[in-house]
Amino acid sequence: MKVLAIDPGYGRCGVAVVEKENGKENLLYSACIETHAKTDFPERLGMIVRKCEQIVKTYEPNSMALERLYFTSNHKTAMKVAEVRGALIAVAAKFDIGIFEYTPSQVKSAVAGWGNADKNQIAKMLHSLMKIKRSIKYDDEYDAIAIGVTHLACSQNSENS
Amino acid sequence: MKVLAIDPGYGRCGVAVVEKENGKENLLYSACIETHAKTDFPERLGMIVRKCEQIVKTYEPNSMALERLYFTSNHKTAMKVAEVRGALIAVAAKFDIGIFEYTPSQVKSAVAGWGNADKNQIAKMLHSLMKIKRSIKYDDEYDAIAIGVTHLACSQNSENS
Repeated sequence: MKVLAIDPGYGRCGVAVVEKENGKENLLYSACIETHAKTDFPERLGMIVRKCEQIVKTYEPNSMALERLYFTSNHKTAMKVAEVRGALIAVAAKFDIGIFEYTPSQVKSAVAGWGNADKNQIAKMLHSLMKIKRSIKYDDEYDAIAIGVTHLACSQNSENS
Repeated sequence: MKVLAIDPGYGRCGVAVVEKENGKENLLYSACIETHAKTDFPERLGMIVRKCEQIVKTYEPNSMALERLYFTSNHKTAMKVAEVRGALIAVAAKFDIGIFEYTPSQVKSAVAGWGNADKNQIAKMLHSLMKIKRSIKYDDEYDAIAIGVTHLACSQNSENS
Protein backbone atom coordinates (compact mmCIF):
# COMPACT_ATOMS: atom_id res chain seq x y z
CA MET A 1 0.00 0.00 0.00
CA LYS A 2 1.52 3.27 -1.14
CA VAL A 3 0.04 6.73 -0.69
CA LEU A 4 0.86 10.13 -2.11
CA ALA A 5 0.02 12.50 0.74
CA ILE A 6 -0.29 16.21 0.19
CA ASP A 7 -0.66 19.23 2.42
CA PRO A 8 -2.14 21.52 -0.24
CA GLY A 9 -0.95 25.08 -0.54
CA TYR A 10 0.19 27.41 -3.29
CA GLY A 11 3.16 29.08 -1.57
CA ARG A 12 4.36 25.84 -0.02
CA CYS A 13 2.83 22.48 -0.80
CA GLY A 14 4.09 19.54 1.25
CA VAL A 15 4.21 16.19 -0.54
CA ALA A 16 5.18 12.74 0.67
CA VAL A 17 5.04 9.18 -0.57
CA VAL A 18 4.63 6.74 2.31
CA GLU A 19 4.17 2.99 2.11
CA LYS A 20 3.49 0.23 4.59
CA GLU A 21 5.33 -3.00 4.18
CA ASN A 22 5.25 -5.86 6.71
CA GLY A 23 3.56 -3.59 9.24
CA LYS A 24 6.25 -0.91 8.99
CA GLU A 25 5.82 2.58 7.52
CA ASN A 26 8.50 3.71 5.11
CA LEU A 27 9.01 7.18 3.75
CA LEU A 28 9.85 6.82 0.05
CA TYR A 29 9.88 10.49 -0.83
CA SER A 30 9.07 13.88 0.62
CA ALA A 31 9.48 17.46 -0.45
CA CYS A 32 8.08 20.93 -0.13
CA ILE A 33 7.06 22.38 -3.48
CA GLU A 34 7.65 26.10 -3.26
CA THR A 35 6.28 28.66 -5.67
CA HIS A 36 7.08 32.33 -5.74
CA ALA A 37 4.54 34.93 -4.62
CA LYS A 38 5.34 37.04 -7.67
CA THR A 39 4.49 34.23 -10.07
CA ASP A 40 0.93 34.23 -11.45
CA PHE A 41 -1.42 31.94 -9.59
CA PRO A 42 -2.25 29.72 -12.62
CA GLU A 43 1.47 29.21 -13.22
CA ARG A 44 2.02 28.32 -9.55
CA LEU A 45 -0.87 25.86 -9.78
CA GLY A 46 0.60 24.41 -12.99
CA MET A 47 3.99 23.90 -11.29
CA ILE A 48 2.38 22.05 -8.37
CA VAL A 49 0.28 19.88 -10.69
CA ARG A 50 3.26 18.99 -12.91
CA LYS A 51 5.38 18.06 -9.91
CA CYS A 52 2.62 15.89 -8.42
CA GLU A 53 2.02 14.17 -11.78
CA GLN A 54 5.75 13.39 -11.92
CA ILE A 55 5.61 11.88 -8.43
CA VAL A 56 2.57 9.77 -9.40
CA LYS A 57 4.39 8.48 -12.49
CA THR A 58 7.57 7.71 -10.50
CA TYR A 59 6.04 6.08 -7.40
CA GLU A 60 2.70 4.80 -8.74
CA PRO A 61 0.80 5.28 -5.46
CA ASN A 62 -2.51 3.44 -4.89
CA SER A 63 -4.14 6.45 -3.34
CA MET A 64 -3.87 10.17 -2.71
CA ALA A 65 -4.49 11.64 0.73
CA LEU A 66 -5.18 15.34 1.19
CA GLU A 67 -5.65 17.59 4.14
CA ARG A 68 -9.17 18.96 4.30
CA LEU A 69 -9.73 22.30 5.94
CA TYR A 70 -13.30 23.23 6.71
CA PHE A 71 -12.92 26.74 8.00
CA THR A 72 -10.21 29.33 7.97
CA SER A 73 -10.17 32.94 8.99
CA ASN A 74 -9.05 34.12 5.56
CA HIS A 75 -11.72 33.47 2.96
CA LYS A 76 -9.55 34.43 -0.01
CA THR A 77 -6.72 32.11 1.06
CA ALA A 78 -9.23 29.32 1.73
CA MET A 79 -10.60 29.64 -1.80
CA LYS A 80 -7.11 29.54 -3.32
CA VAL A 81 -6.15 26.48 -1.28
CA ALA A 82 -9.43 24.87 -2.42
CA GLU A 83 -8.36 25.63 -6.00
CA VAL A 84 -5.07 23.80 -5.38
CA ARG A 85 -7.01 20.91 -3.86
CA GLY A 86 -9.27 20.77 -6.93
CA ALA A 87 -6.32 20.66 -9.30
CA LEU A 88 -4.83 17.80 -7.24
CA ILE A 89 -8.13 15.90 -7.10
CA ALA A 90 -8.20 16.17 -10.91
CA VAL A 91 -4.69 14.63 -11.02
CA ALA A 92 -5.95 11.70 -8.91
CA ALA A 93 -9.00 11.33 -11.18
CA LYS A 94 -6.77 11.38 -14.27
CA PHE A 95 -4.57 8.57 -12.95
CA ASP A 96 -7.55 6.71 -11.47
CA ILE A 97 -6.18 6.91 -7.93
CA GLY A 98 -8.58 6.94 -4.98
CA ILE A 99 -8.78 10.20 -3.02
CA PHE A 100 -8.95 10.31 0.75
CA GLU A 101 -9.26 13.39 2.92
CA TYR A 102 -8.32 13.98 6.52
CA THR A 103 -8.86 16.96 8.78
CA PRO A 104 -5.91 18.35 10.78
CA SER A 105 -7.33 16.92 14.01
CA GLN A 106 -7.71 13.46 12.45
CA VAL A 107 -4.06 13.64 11.42
CA LYS A 108 -2.90 14.77 14.86
CA SER A 109 -4.94 12.03 16.57
CA ALA A 110 -3.62 9.34 14.25
CA VAL A 111 0.02 10.37 14.53
CA ALA A 112 0.41 11.71 18.07
CA GLY A 113 -2.59 10.16 19.81
CA TRP A 114 -4.52 13.34 20.46
CA GLY A 115 -6.18 16.01 18.27
CA ASN A 116 -4.40 19.01 19.77
CA ALA A 117 -0.80 17.82 19.38
CA ASP A 118 1.56 20.58 18.31
CA LYS A 119 3.93 20.68 15.33
CA ASN A 120 6.96 19.58 17.38
CA GLN A 121 5.17 16.58 18.86
CA ILE A 122 4.06 15.51 15.37
CA ALA A 123 7.60 15.83 14.01
CA LYS A 124 9.05 13.83 16.94
CA MET A 125 6.48 11.07 16.49
CA LEU A 126 7.23 10.86 12.77
CA HIS A 127 10.97 10.58 13.43
CA SER A 128 10.38 7.78 15.94
CA LEU A 129 8.01 6.01 13.52
CA MET A 130 10.18 5.99 10.39
CA LYS A 131 13.57 6.85 8.96
CA ILE A 132 13.55 10.43 7.74
CA LYS A 133 16.93 10.85 6.10
CA ARG A 134 16.80 14.35 4.73
CA SER A 135 16.56 17.35 6.98
CA ILE A 136 13.14 18.92 6.74
CA LYS A 137 12.92 22.68 6.62
CA TYR A 138 9.20 23.36 6.54
CA ASP A 139 6.27 22.05 8.55
CA ASP A 140 4.33 21.55 5.31
CA GLU A 141 6.57 18.58 4.51
CA TYR A 142 6.08 17.05 7.98
CA ASP A 143 2.33 17.66 7.58
CA ALA A 144 2.32 15.73 4.30
CA ILE A 145 4.20 12.81 5.88
CA ALA A 146 1.74 12.87 8.80
CA ILE A 147 -1.22 12.80 6.40
CA GLY A 148 0.33 9.78 4.67
CA VAL A 149 0.86 7.98 8.00
CA THR A 150 -2.77 8.79 8.94
CA HIS A 151 -4.01 7.29 5.69
CA LEU A 152 -2.02 4.10 6.21
CA ALA A 153 -3.37 3.78 9.77
CA CYS A 154 -6.98 4.41 8.68
CA SER A 155 -6.76 2.05 5.69
CA GLN A 156 -5.37 -0.68 7.93
CA ASN A 157 -8.26 -0.16 10.33
CA SER A 158 -10.83 -0.46 7.57
CA GLU A 159 -9.08 -3.56 6.19
CA ASN A 160 -9.16 -5.20 9.60
CA SER A 161 -12.79 -4.38 10.27
CA MET B 1 -9.60 36.12 -30.58
CA LYS B 2 -11.24 33.00 -29.23
CA VAL B 3 -12.18 32.34 -25.61
CA LEU B 4 -13.28 29.26 -23.72
CA ALA B 5 -15.68 30.64 -21.12
CA ILE B 6 -16.80 28.58 -18.17
CA ASP B 7 -19.37 28.99 -15.44
CA PRO B 8 -17.75 26.55 -13.00
CA GLY B 9 -19.90 24.07 -11.13
CA TYR B 10 -19.85 20.36 -10.38
CA GLY B 11 -23.54 19.53 -10.89
CA ARG B 12 -23.82 21.72 -13.95
CA CYS B 13 -20.89 23.43 -15.57
CA GLY B 14 -21.67 25.83 -18.41
CA VAL B 15 -19.08 26.03 -21.18
CA ALA B 16 -18.91 28.17 -24.31
CA VAL B 17 -16.42 29.01 -27.00
CA VAL B 18 -16.95 32.53 -28.30
CA GLU B 19 -14.87 34.39 -30.84
CA LYS B 20 -14.82 37.89 -32.24
CA GLU B 21 -14.24 38.30 -35.94
CA ASN B 22 -14.56 41.60 -37.79
CA GLY B 23 -16.15 43.18 -34.73
CA LYS B 24 -18.86 40.51 -34.49
CA GLU B 25 -19.20 37.92 -31.71
CA ASN B 26 -19.78 34.35 -32.85
CA LEU B 27 -20.76 31.44 -30.70
CA LEU B 28 -18.71 28.45 -31.86
CA TYR B 29 -19.80 26.00 -29.19
CA SER B 30 -21.76 25.84 -25.99
CA ALA B 31 -22.93 23.13 -23.64
CA CYS B 32 -23.84 22.35 -20.10
CA ILE B 33 -21.69 19.56 -18.65
CA GLU B 34 -23.87 17.69 -16.21
CA THR B 35 -22.62 15.24 -13.61
CA HIS B 36 -24.71 13.07 -11.36
CA ALA B 37 -25.05 13.80 -7.64
CA LYS B 38 -24.51 10.12 -6.87
CA THR B 39 -21.16 10.05 -8.64
CA ASP B 40 -18.08 10.60 -6.46
CA PHE B 41 -16.80 14.15 -6.49
CA PRO B 42 -13.32 13.30 -7.92
CA GLU B 43 -14.99 11.43 -10.77
CA ARG B 44 -17.31 14.37 -11.45
CA LEU B 45 -14.30 16.68 -11.45
CA GLY B 46 -12.47 14.31 -13.80
CA MET B 47 -15.41 14.32 -16.24
CA ILE B 48 -15.49 18.13 -16.30
CA VAL B 49 -11.72 18.36 -16.81
CA ARG B 50 -11.69 15.78 -19.63
CA LYS B 51 -14.55 17.55 -21.42
CA CYS B 52 -12.83 20.94 -21.11
CA GLU B 53 -9.52 19.51 -22.34
CA GLN B 54 -11.38 18.09 -25.36
CA ILE B 55 -12.86 21.52 -26.08
CA VAL B 56 -9.43 23.16 -25.78
CA LYS B 57 -7.96 20.64 -28.23
CA THR B 58 -10.85 21.09 -30.69
CA TYR B 59 -11.20 24.89 -30.64
CA GLU B 60 -7.72 25.99 -29.56
CA PRO B 61 -8.89 29.08 -27.64
CA ASN B 62 -6.41 31.88 -26.83
CA SER B 63 -7.77 32.33 -23.34
CA MET B 64 -10.00 30.89 -20.66
CA ALA B 65 -12.53 33.07 -18.83
CA LEU B 66 -14.06 31.95 -15.55
CA GLU B 67 -16.71 33.32 -13.28
CA ARG B 68 -15.26 34.38 -9.94
CA LEU B 69 -17.49 34.24 -6.91
CA TYR B 70 -16.24 35.96 -3.79
CA PHE B 71 -18.88 35.08 -1.26
CA THR B 72 -21.68 32.60 -1.07
CA SER B 73 -23.99 31.62 1.72
CA ASN B 74 -22.97 27.96 1.55
CA HIS B 75 -19.33 27.51 2.55
CA LYS B 76 -19.17 23.83 1.56
CA THR B 77 -20.56 24.49 -1.92
CA ALA B 78 -18.21 27.46 -2.33
CA MET B 79 -15.20 25.26 -1.53
CA LYS B 80 -16.32 22.60 -4.01
CA VAL B 81 -16.85 25.17 -6.75
CA ALA B 82 -13.38 26.55 -5.93
CA GLU B 83 -12.04 23.02 -6.40
CA VAL B 84 -13.65 22.88 -9.86
CA ARG B 85 -12.15 26.30 -10.62
CA GLY B 86 -8.71 25.06 -9.55
CA ALA B 87 -8.93 21.99 -11.77
CA LEU B 88 -9.89 24.26 -14.71
CA ILE B 89 -7.11 26.75 -13.98
CA ALA B 90 -4.71 23.79 -14.09
CA VAL B 91 -6.10 22.87 -17.54
CA ALA B 92 -5.40 26.42 -18.73
CA ALA B 93 -1.88 26.25 -17.25
CA LYS B 94 -1.25 22.90 -18.95
CA PHE B 95 -2.21 24.26 -22.37
CA ASP B 96 -0.52 27.61 -21.70
CA ILE B 97 -3.74 29.57 -22.11
CA GLY B 98 -4.20 32.85 -20.24
CA ILE B 99 -6.81 32.83 -17.46
CA PHE B 100 -9.21 35.73 -16.91
CA GLU B 101 -11.81 36.01 -14.21
CA TYR B 102 -15.00 38.06 -14.03
CA THR B 103 -17.47 38.55 -11.23
CA PRO B 104 -21.21 38.06 -11.92
CA SER B 105 -21.80 41.81 -11.77
CA GLN B 106 -18.99 42.48 -14.27
CA VAL B 107 -20.64 39.98 -16.61
CA LYS B 108 -24.09 41.52 -16.19
CA SER B 109 -22.72 45.02 -16.76
CA ALA B 110 -20.81 43.99 -19.88
CA VAL B 111 -23.70 42.08 -21.45
CA ALA B 112 -26.84 43.92 -20.37
CA GLY B 113 -25.45 47.31 -19.40
CA TRP B 114 -26.09 47.14 -15.68
CA GLY B 115 -24.88 44.96 -12.81
CA ASN B 116 -28.28 43.86 -11.57
CA ALA B 117 -29.70 42.52 -14.84
CA ASP B 118 -31.69 39.30 -14.39
CA LYS B 119 -31.22 35.96 -16.15
CA ASN B 120 -33.93 36.67 -18.76
CA GLN B 121 -32.44 40.02 -19.70
CA ILE B 122 -29.01 38.40 -20.10
CA ALA B 123 -30.45 35.63 -22.30
CA LYS B 124 -32.33 38.17 -24.46
CA MET B 125 -29.22 40.31 -24.92
CA LEU B 126 -27.18 37.27 -25.92
CA HIS B 127 -29.77 36.23 -28.51
CA SER B 128 -29.79 39.74 -29.98
CA LEU B 129 -25.98 39.82 -30.01
CA MET B 130 -25.24 36.49 -31.71
CA LYS B 131 -26.80 33.50 -33.43
CA ILE B 132 -27.59 30.85 -30.82
CA LYS B 133 -28.80 27.92 -32.86
CA ARG B 134 -29.41 25.24 -30.26
CA SER B 135 -32.06 25.61 -27.64
CA ILE B 136 -30.52 26.21 -24.25
CA LYS B 137 -32.01 24.41 -21.28
CA TYR B 138 -29.96 25.68 -18.37
CA ASP B 139 -28.87 29.14 -17.25
CA ASP B 140 -25.34 27.81 -16.66
CA GLU B 141 -24.87 27.64 -20.44
CA TYR B 142 -26.13 31.21 -20.94
CA ASP B 143 -23.85 32.28 -18.09
CA ALA B 144 -20.85 30.74 -19.84
CA ILE B 145 -21.72 32.50 -23.11
CA ALA B 146 -22.14 35.77 -21.19
CA ILE B 147 -18.72 35.32 -19.55
CA GLY B 148 -17.21 34.78 -23.01
CA VAL B 149 -18.86 37.92 -24.37
CA THR B 150 -17.63 39.86 -21.33
CA HIS B 151 -14.08 38.70 -21.95
CA LEU B 152 -14.23 39.73 -25.61
CA ALA B 153 -15.57 43.16 -24.62
CA CYS B 154 -12.93 43.65 -21.92
CA SER B 155 -10.06 42.44 -24.10
CA GLN B 156 -11.14 44.82 -26.83
CA ASN B 157 -11.17 47.68 -24.34
CA SER B 158 -7.67 46.88 -23.15
CA GLU B 159 -6.46 46.55 -26.74
CA ASN B 160 -7.88 49.97 -27.61
CA SER B 161 -6.47 51.65 -24.54
